[in-house]
Amino acid sequence: MVTNDRGIRRLLLERRPGVLHVLDPFKVTLADALEKVRVIADLDFPVLILGSTDYERFEAQMTPYIDALKDAVGIPVVLHFPPRPGHGLPFTRNADAIFCPALLNSARPYMVWQSFLDTLNAFHARGIAPAETPELIFSAALTFGADRRSYEAMQTHPMPEDGEGLWLFLEIVRRMGLDQSYLYSRHQQVPPEICALFREHTPSDHLVFVSGGMRSREQVERYIDAGADYVVFGSALEHPGWRESLKRIVC
Amino acid sequence: MVTNDRGIRRLLLERRPGVLHVLDPFKVTLADALEKVRVIADLDFPVLILGSTDYERFEAQMTPYIDALKDAVGIPVVLHFPPRPGHGLPFTRNADAIFCPALLNSARPYMVWQSFLDTLNAFHARGIAPAETPELIFSAALTFGADRRSYEAMQTHPMPEDGEGLWLFLEIVRRMGLDQSYLYSRHQQVPPEICALFREHTPSDHLVFVSGGMRSREQVERYIDAGADYVVFGSALEHPGWRESLKRIVC
Repeated sequence: MVTNDRGIRRLLLERRPGVLHVLDPFKVTLADALEKVRVIADLDFPVLILGSTDYERFEAQMTPYIDALKDAVGIPVVLHFPPRPGHGLPFTRNADAIFCPALLNSARPYMVWQSFLDTLNAFHARGIAPAETPELIFSAALTFGADRRSYEAMQTHPMPEDGEGLWLFLEIVRRMGLDQSYLYSRHQQVPPEICALFREHTPSDHLVFVSGGMRSREQVERYIDAGADYVVFGSALEHPGWRESLKRIVC
Repeated sequence: MVTNDRGIRRLLLERRPGVLHVLDPFKVTLADALEKVRVIADLDFPVLILGSTDYERFEAQMTPYIDALKDAVGIPVVLHFPPRPGHGLPFTRNADAIFCPALLNSARPYMVWQSFLDTLNAFHARGIAPAETPELIFSAALTFGADRRSYEAMQTHPMPEDGEGLWLFLEIVRRMGLDQSYLYSRHQQVPPEICALFREHTPSDHLVFVSGGMRSREQVERYIDAGADYVVFGSALEHPGWRESLKRIVC
């Protein structure tokens, strides 16, 4: 299911498997982001993800940031941020797509799915017709390992890591017909066997992302061999020696 | 969770437990409906449900029908119909609330929840602001017993009837924070123990409805004793001797 198809999910399906970079625009200066996005576009990454758990003054900050990135290179930009009650998901008109997180293991129904209704109402309130929004890609967002920040921001509990515990989530993903699963570990790493379980028990056009602690080409290969469609790295490039780090992941 | 609170869910919470009538406006003539709604208003039912699996020319048919009912008596009108892909849930502006069915045991994600997005987009397309829509009440709609018509219209499978099989659905209801569960059997009757399970494993402000095959006060009492908030009867009144049938249920 895609709301307002702008070709981003289709692009991700066509170009899988691969690696993607998630860049935190509230941490990375625009000058730094421009350098990174040029290198990433040269490497032919299909999209750039902009994401963070934290944000403020979203639209004022993000609109010129995204404009500048898009002026520099043609890469599509995907937003990946948590919702805020009463506002829904943050967005800008110039983003190409939004990964809409269904935080299935959150204690708050708002984080599980109700934010999507708020988001559509926010589009309405802002006069943005359904055909003019960024593409909405619905994503089971599941966090593995202890993660106080995700709990504080989104009341998400760490996922179970055994097949029996995961069955509930695979059932919900399948019944809701979510477009993708985004498996994330903030402080540890997602076990590759969990990627394999998601690959095996979701439809072939369901995308499986894995993120957290990615540092080497070997890790990436292990996840892709296990069935991940995209391995996403972020903080690996959040230091001055990022060009070297990038080489270790993509070469 | 209620979208655009118009007091209908609060009224249902305040007035529980009780009985409700669901009237099929595509089967019952307006003249007949007017007679019934007057009797029902005299009995102080909190709302009238208008519902059916089938419908056509919804708004053209329903708008004057609802206007006429509301002119005759002050009872709030709640819509309860399945969605249609590309259109979402059918609605009229003059309805007070919509029971939005989350058909959790449907093979089609559209019927599980995606129709809600279509419905909000339809409001937008029609220029109806979020604050002007009927109240949206999100309802786990679960059918018990073989039911070919529900399968054909909504690809819903019959629900399991054991605690283990029901656990998945109770988990989904709780995680999604649905406002109510609507337990229905077209050709048989919902086992009262299932009402008890839903009452026990959902929050106290979650409403439990049960419907299908209601013919007597004893049945109603059995369901209410088991924990149902509302017992809903429909076809019991679809014949010329409906006044007698109504007496058997409410007296």
